[in-house]
Amino acid sequence: MSLSVRDLQQIIRDTYDSKDRRRGVEGTFMWFMEEVGELSAALRNGTDAERAAEFADVLAWLATLANIAGIDLDAAVRAKYGGGCPGCRQTPCVCDQAAKP
Amino acid sequence: MSLSVRDLQQIIRDTYDSKDRRRGVEGTFMWFMEEVGELSAALRNGTDAERAAEFADVLAWLATLANIAGIDLDAAVRAKYGGGCPGCRQTPCVCDQAAKP
Repeated sequence: MSLSVRDLQQIIRDTYDSKDRRRGVEGTFMWFMEEVGELSAALRNGTDAERAAEFADVLAWLATLANIAGIDLDAAVRAKYGGGCPGCRQTPCVCDQAAKP
Repeated sequence: MSLSVRDLQQIIRDTYDSKDRRRGVEGTFMWFMEEVGELSAALRNGTDAERAAEFADVLAWLATLANIAGIDLDAAVRAKYGGGCPGCRQTPCVCDQAAKP
């Protein structure tokens, strides 16, 4: 049974919402960036378990940011990536290798 | 119908895997960070639609990084956040407001 993106956002809301709202977007973004830095370090030097934990933290803080900003991550990602690459509209992507993304 | 975290990671894999593997972790991390910067700008100045698109991009690039690193995002986030706050093990979190997270 795989967790849905919507469930993930709800779990983070249930767990942290009152703290998140007191902290606000700016303070939350700083926590998010700290986790991004830890992910960078784990990608260079970490064990698989450490990398997994840091990916989880970045995803959780991204969900927190989305909660505070009032964004539905599930709808956002389905709208942009649910129909193939947003650049070429194909799966797999056939955009030039140097092109974004 | 909500997208699962596992499906999201698979959609990104289906769409970008061969490009992602050629780029590697370091190059992908730089693209990821560019999207994080765009999210920061959108949180300050963007419309709701722009914020949603930037959240989607950060989430998609996080999934790409996880694909390259061989990390199952679904398992990682369920292991760390599926049983309440990783600090206090409660929902809602009762950790001190100043404490992480």
